[in-house]
Amino acid sequence: MSNTSLPAAAAGLSVNRLARPLVESLLADAEALGLHVRRDDTGVQIVDAGIEAPGGVAAGLRIAEICMGGLGKVDLRSGGSADGWPTWLDVRSSQPVLACLGSQYAGWSLSASKEETGGKKFFSLGSGPARALAVKETLFGELGYRDRAQTGVLVLEVDRAPPKIIIDKLLRDCDLAPQALTLILTPTTSRAGTTQVVARVLEVALHKAHELGYALADIVDGAASAPLSSASSDGVEAMGRTNDAILYGGRVHLTVRGEDDAARALAHALPSGNSRDYGRSFAEIFKEVAYDFYKIDGALFAPAEVWISNLDSGRTWHAGAPDMALLRRLWLQEARNDAEPLK
Amino acid sequence: MSNTSLPAAAAGLSVNRLARPLVESLLADAEALGLHVRRDDTGVQIVDAGIEAPGGVAAGLRIAEICMGGLGKVDLRSGGSADGWPTWLDVRSSQPVLACLGSQYAGWSLSASKEETGGKKFFSLGSGPARALAVKETLFGELGYRDRAQTGVLVLEVDRAPPKIIIDKLLRDCDLAPQALTLILTPTTSRAGTTQVVARVLEVALHKAHELGYALADIVDGAASAPLSSASSDGVEAMGRTNDAILYGGRVHLTVRGEDDAARALAHALPSGNSRDYGRSFAEIFKEVAYDFYKIDGALFAPAEVWISNLDSGRTWHAGAPDMALLRRLWLQEARNDAEPLK
Amino acid sequence: MSNTSLPAAAAGLSVNRLARPLVESLLADAEALGLHVRRDDTGVQIVDAGIEAPGGVAAGLRIAEICMGGLGKVDLRSGGSADGWPTWLDVRSSQPVLACLGSQYAGWSLSASKEETGGKKFFSLGSGPARALAVKETLFGELGYRDRAQTGVLVLEVDRAPPKIIIDKLLRDCDLAPQALTLILTPTTSRAGTTQVVARVLEVALHKAHELGYALADIVDGAASAPLSSASSDGVEAMGRTNDAILYGGRVHLTVRGEDDAARALAHALPSGNSRDYGRSFAEIFKEVAYDFYKIDGALFAPAEVWISNLDSGRTWHAGAPDMALLRRLWLQEARNDAEPLK
Repeated sequence: MSNTSLPAAAAGLSVNRLARPLVESLLADAEALGLHVRRDDTGVQIVDAGIEAPGGVAAGLRIAEICMGGLGKVDLRSGGSADGWPTWLDVRSSQPVLACLGSQYAGWSLSASKEETGGKKFFSLGSGPARALAVKETLFGELGYRDRAQTGVLVLEVDRAPPKIIIDKLLRDCDLAPQALTLILTPTTSRAGTTQVVARVLEVALHKAHELGYALADIVDGAASAPLSSASSDGVEAMGRTNDAILYGGRVHLTVRGEDDAARALAHALPSGNSRDYGRSFAEIFKEVAYDFYKIDGALFAPAEVWISNLDSGRTWHAGAPDMALLRRLWLQEARNDAEPLK
Repeated sequence: MSNTSLPAAAAGLSVNRLARPLVESLLADAEALGLHVRRDDTGVQIVDAGIEAPGGVAAGLRIAEICMGGLGKVDLRSGGSADGWPTWLDVRSSQPVLACLGSQYAGWSLSASKEETGGKKFFSLGSGPARALAVKETLFGELGYRDRAQTGVLVLEVDRAPPKIIIDKLLRDCDLAPQALTLILTPTTSRAGTTQVVARVLEVALHKAHELGYALADIVDGAASAPLSSASSDGVEAMGRTNDAILYGGRVHLTVRGEDDAARALAHALPSGNSRDYGRSFAEIFKEVAYDFYKIDGALFAPAEVWISNLDSGRTWHAGAPDMALLRRLWLQEARNDAEPLK
Repeated sequence: MSNTSLPAAAAGLSVNRLARPLVESLLADAEALGLHVRRDDTGVQIVDAGIEAPGGVAAGLRIAEICMGGLGKVDLRSGGSADGWPTWLDVRSSQPVLACLGSQYAGWSLSASKEETGGKKFFSLGSGPARALAVKETLFGELGYRDRAQTGVLVLEVDRAPPKIIIDKLLRDCDLAPQALTLILTPTTSRAGTTQVVARVLEVALHKAHELGYALADIVDGAASAPLSSASSDGVEAMGRTNDAILYGGRVHLTVRGEDDAARALAHALPSGNSRDYGRSFAEIFKEVAYDFYKIDGALFAPAEVWISNLDSGRTWHAGAPDMALLRRLWLQEARNDAEPLK
């Protein structure tokens, strides 16, 4: 078993099959959740979760659980007085590698040129269960995972439906009939979009653990939290805030097996504070690198605080800390100032 | 669209239809929840949640979600060491105006004189989905909302079943057959009653926003929390504590659309600390005005702390703070004193 | 009604019938939850939740709710910055005496000698709903409770399946056909095992209240929380940590009826800090008494902090406090030390 393969217990699971009841429940409750649902010309189910439709936090929570292949729980929780922000997401999974890297990670690059679309060029990173049907990413080879299912669901963080050439590619790569594919569209500017992105706090930790060369098969449980940032009609601001939420407010507790030294080293290296870019708003950093993600220090993409519990030894290592004072400076203003007396 | 109409996405929803599965689940689990269920002579379903029946917190949580027309989530959460009280309610809705004002608000005045009842006079403020069938309140004209459904459910904060004349009025005003109406009776002295009242923390914020003239259609998401007060066999004490919970411990996070100035002004004006009556127990204030609610400063009916996030700008305004020290003085005693050695 | 009988509303409930849908859902989701399910030679359903199977926290949460006879809720929650530990369990029940003492308490002593098993001797304390079918403990006489149901489920904190002689005894004592009995096996060394044991934080409070002679029929609601300890491959360490979690991190809020003096005295006497053994790790205490539970001061088995709310008077008494500094010393290490610069 290679360093990066799935825990054995996960290999037989179908993330698309496990997500299916959640998709059906999302469709059944679409109106109450503020979603617009339609079938496109080919018959693919399109769920608008924030383009024309209002979307909303409740929809975002459901979409986040679908994105985790039915193997994760995502809840909203009110912060206490000491927490520095009113609204938090709690995310957990007892199959964290499969739920997060095998499903939730936005790793499937989907692009079409102007010539191909006959209009605007299209780019999106597909996330969610259908990635595991197409297995177009090297990550799936490393995980040793491929899903085979009769239906598929993919989440796209976009502000318009994908063009026909992309839909055709998805159906071909996933080997699905059009009626069997559901696409959920969540622009970052919507609350549903912001919610499902901040819900990636656990996934971000797993992705960095993988980058650090930690044996994924040794990660057996995960729980995480992050402050739910406000959306914004400015896409860069909205996206920046979702990253701020994780990098400066994210807290992740992983349970692992194996050697204590490896667990301790993971705790040491994991938090975002290890990055040279730590401490400034993500939108500022992003503008500085001329909006080129690949120029940002990869070590920054991590939660602020981590605990690694080793199931074999019973020991837990801790490192990092959230910087809620920074988040409050970036996100929050007092409604009152001294010049203006209380009514 | 007037200042006070519903967000467009809410207009097509039926709060009674959305609440129906929750009502059926409540009835199915009645015994475990400590509820007594019967049909009265006319065939109306009566759920006793704390008169003869024990009721309980678990029942109160379910009733609160019914009262929000199936469009809200109400959960119990343990407070942390810094929170100053052990048990909290978390309330959220992505359709907060409809869930809270169109359904949960106790706005339907139901009264009958001694002559009419042939016994004691009756008074109650009806809350929950069936209000939107009867649309007897001016609020519904402002919201531009009317529900039409084959079944209805109403929550009454009373210590006895309503007299026949009231039941007849409900059936007539809601245009329902007796078998289609469910009444849930929750005295404030019961745990179910206390729970479903403290769960109004989000509704109290929306009601005050409406009083302040804020455009309800701009409020698109809401999350709130409040400490769950103890019930008491003294009705005024029990009611007073539920108000204390919201006024001094309530914290509300609203997401809005529109102008930053309006969002900032809302944050400024919303918290209970703006009221001249702020800082004393509600029961004390209530006794001082000789038990006449309408003599209490309306500005007091609000959560203690608020955040308003503007989805259009991405900005968040904050104002107010809970006063847990006050609540602990009002609610809590140490079991030990110095004169009395341990054990 | 004796001092220790059930609240009247609980007497008609069947914990095995209420748990049954949760058992069926556990079996249906077995693969995703990391459980191995099989029928033994006699036809009894055996659920391995951490022996050969991985188990996991998600499975442990479900098993804890089964163990409470379907009358409790057990949730995972992320701790805030002030809470001193990242992952907490919230436990609540509005039928706490029946859920905890009538079902969840590990009170059914099951043992077989080498001669009887034809191999290793066997010992386990059975917990969960099937205890109430067999009613082999004096506690059931005190509660005045006996369940009669067509199916039963029992949880055993063991690292191997029980021998045939024990299975035969279970079937006989519960008066069940083999196909109607489900056994859930959760070794303390597994995450599922650790989770379902820490979820006993409310039960531990009820058990001590009973030991103190408090009238169980007066306890009408309960909510509790405790930090979820890490499991360990060392059984004594793992078990010790689950006890540490409750004794030093457990917080319980009970709602009672009756006299204020009794409520206040209960708050006074309940916390673990009343014990002479308070303040050292449970594993250390356990080794000191040569692994003989019965030599440990019974007063230690209690949550660290309690609130008792009297529903009749509306008053709440508080006593005790968690010692998170102690738990952090016992459980946690910083991944970085000064000698080692940040990467």
